[in-house]
Amino acid sequence: MLCAMESPVTREHCAALDAADPLAFARERFVLPEGVIYLDGNSLGALPRSVAPRLREAVERDWAHGLIRSWNDAGWYSAPQRAAARIARLIGAQPDQVMVADSISVNLFKLLAGAIGIQRRRDPRRTVLVAERGNFPTDVYLDASVAALYGLELVCPEPHEVRQAMTLAGDRLALVQLTHVHYRSGRIHDMPGITAQAHAQGALVIWDLAHTAGAMPVSLDALEVDFAVGCGYKYLNGGAGAPAFVYVARRWIDSFEQPLVGWHGHARPFAFEHHWEPAPGIGRLQCGTQPVLSLLALEAALEAFDGIDLDLLRAKSMAMTTLFTDLLEASPGFGTEAGLGLASPREAAARGSQVSLTHPQGYAIVQALIARGVIGDFRAPDILRFGFAPLYLSHVDVHDAALALREVVLSRAWDRPEFLARKAVT
Amino acid sequence: MLCAMESPVTREHCAALDAADPLAFARERFVLPEGVIYLDGNSLGALPRSVAPRLREAVERDWAHGLIRSWNDAGWYSAPQRAAARIARLIGAQPDQVMVADSISVNLFKLLAGAIGIQRRRDPRRTVLVAERGNFPTDVYLDASVAALYGLELVCPEPHEVRQAMTLAGDRLALVQLTHVHYRSGRIHDMPGITAQAHAQGALVIWDLAHTAGAMPVSLDALEVDFAVGCGYKYLNGGAGAPAFVYVARRWIDSFEQPLVGWHGHARPFAFEHHWEPAPGIGRLQCGTQPVLSLLALEAALEAFDGIDLDLLRAKSMAMTTLFTDLLEASPGFGTEAGLGLASPREAAARGSQVSLTHPQGYAIVQALIARGVIGDFRAPDILRFGFAPLYLSHVDVHDAALALREVVLSRAWDRPEFLARKAVT
Repeated sequence: MLCAMESPVTREHCAALDAADPLAFARERFVLPEGVIYLDGNSLGALPRSVAPRLREAVERDWAHGLIRSWNDAGWYSAPQRAAARIARLIGAQPDQVMVADSISVNLFKLLAGAIGIQRRRDPRRTVLVAERGNFPTDVYLDASVAALYGLELVCPEPHEVRQAMTLAGDRLALVQLTHVHYRSGRIHDMPGITAQAHAQGALVIWDLAHTAGAMPVSLDALEVDFAVGCGYKYLNGGAGAPAFVYVARRWIDSFEQPLVGWHGHARPFAFEHHWEPAPGIGRLQCGTQPVLSLLALEAALEAFDGIDLDLLRAKSMAMTTLFTDLLEASPGFGTEAGLGLASPREAAARGSQVSLTHPQGYAIVQALIARGVIGDFRAPDILRFGFAPLYLSHVDVHDAALALREVVLSRAWDRPEFLARKAVT
Repeated sequence: MLCAMESPVTREHCAALDAADPLAFARERFVLPEGVIYLDGNSLGALPRSVAPRLREAVERDWAHGLIRSWNDAGWYSAPQRAAARIARLIGAQPDQVMVADSISVNLFKLLAGAIGIQRRRDPRRTVLVAERGNFPTDVYLDASVAALYGLELVCPEPHEVRQAMTLAGDRLALVQLTHVHYRSGRIHDMPGITAQAHAQGALVIWDLAHTAGAMPVSLDALEVDFAVGCGYKYLNGGAGAPAFVYVARRWIDSFEQPLVGWHGHARPFAFEHHWEPAPGIGRLQCGTQPVLSLLALEAALEAFDGIDLDLLRAKSMAMTTLFTDLLEASPGFGTEAGLGLASPREAAARGSQVSLTHPQGYAIVQALIARGVIGDFRAPDILRFGFAPLYLSHVDVHDAALALREVVLSRAWDRPEFLARKAVT
């Protein structure tokens, strides 16, 4: 629920915040369209300047003229490892535990199957997988599917009841699969507490970092997280459907086996051997050939994080989401009276780099905002989602977006046929 | 074994063949480097001219300025279906049975699991999967892995003993998984005969068309093939690691279920429902978000097949592989005496669009040829592989390549340190 309150935040004040912003320089690393405030970097990150020239080179030089030789000469073959090493820093991991490959869905399948295999060998009486109701669909579908495949019992409590459900499972708890930052609300799970509890119970954890990586620091190694997956195309800005990343803690790699085995994960892929033998390290998480153009775009995009202090990134992110909610709450007649609710946690520290609101006409409001150049997105049935990518957004952007939202809602600008009609991708 | 014989094929004769070639016009649809004869389109297809402008548009306009809106406005969301419809014509399929997604490896996993599920429900006593020894490693690894997962018995006969092995399995035969054109030898399996035998025994077939699609016509619908996968980056020229395609015959789609379930395969992906419900048609073969840049490159690349008669394509392909072997065999002192053998079938009709040779120094010979601008590839331990993509190669190319190979072998030009030293990707 949004509550009206007085707030002195002016556009001038926001401009002063921008002038003092230690990350303001990073905005120049992106191509941003004129007249647009882009609050959907949590769905598809903006285009880093480094990407277009890299892709032109990859296509017009390396593919056109290097042809097959570019696997060696242009470094295509090692691109997954290079991109992974860049991501490793952003998630607090030594790079030999991270691989870039496939989609989150495919990687989550690998992790679930591999983790279940490890637990079966350690203690076959562990048969409970705790996930969470309302997680991103791919996670829930795969949790259910892999649990059925291996005969595990899937327990899907509400997010705030995850730890009780873990406790209840006792020493039958095999695995916990959660998303760190919730895709709808932006609520952050207690990664240290849940991971520690899982380990205390003898269980393993798989964290989905889709809305984490590139938006805030996280410390997989320090927290002794077992497994993680994450997205290349949200805050990492790798382009639509960019390959995902997958993390396997060093202590599990040698015993990690899963059924999605392809030649790129073999110990000697170019020996073309009849029998499967997994690569000795994280390479075994590879499967088939990666989509090189999308992969090179991701690799280039990750340069936007060069020299970026992740604590500053998180501080700016929290300042922006706070500014946004403050501005909304300072609008007389806004908030609850206008049908709006707050779907994100009120405390900035408890949410990721997004603010989610609810409104029965959320879809049309988002469309009307897009028509005014403020791009957020909608998640059925009633969520308006605004992501604040700290690398390329300014405090003035946040100010102007809040004002535009207030105007669209208060003037009912959304109540037009072209905003009410649903598109294929919402 | 190559046998020396007299042959009157001159470069002038080849030029005359090119002048009369009804597909010669298609060469202009590709960007080909000067001074290179590219005989590795069976590993990575050459760059179609349509790709670079399409990708520039996708990145510099649709991503940069359209941002998230491009999922609708630039048609990203329907790109898998559009690319699939173009591929459908090339494999003799109605388009509602083809999807573009993921890699061959990932799709083969889906098909094996889905086909086993269907057979289990029809007759659980069918427990034998017949594959083949020496198939491309990804196929064999996945055959073994999925067979183990579902408790099937995997039988891997030599390629020429596949039909006996099927017969031997009798009514326990559940599934046959083969590659149509062998990646090393180019040998073509008898798809009509094997498919018909499998069906007569109550079994289903999964064909891997990695070295088929775009090189020769094939009639999946007419032969009542059950399932197929294929590659986007070989003869379809979609760029390194381009998304693969997958075919499920219409009669199996509604009962097709497999455990690699992601939100893009859901009946209502944007309803974000908790429970999995597969999309009603071939859409259920999707899993996570596709790598859009690689996907759009593939879609653009497929325009190179616009208006191409596939029978003419096959005729030219056979003429080129025949010309190549004729030229080699016409070289006095060449062939067996020089240590070369023929690893492909002697009859053009029995091989795909490639000619494979054997030589103990195959690796170094291929490197020496590459240094002279004739690009083939090497497959351990001793295979020299030359692919003849009919869309962009000329008969004069074939002539010159054969002469270059003869010269490299007879002069031992390969016997230099820089050609003998192995690279990462061979």
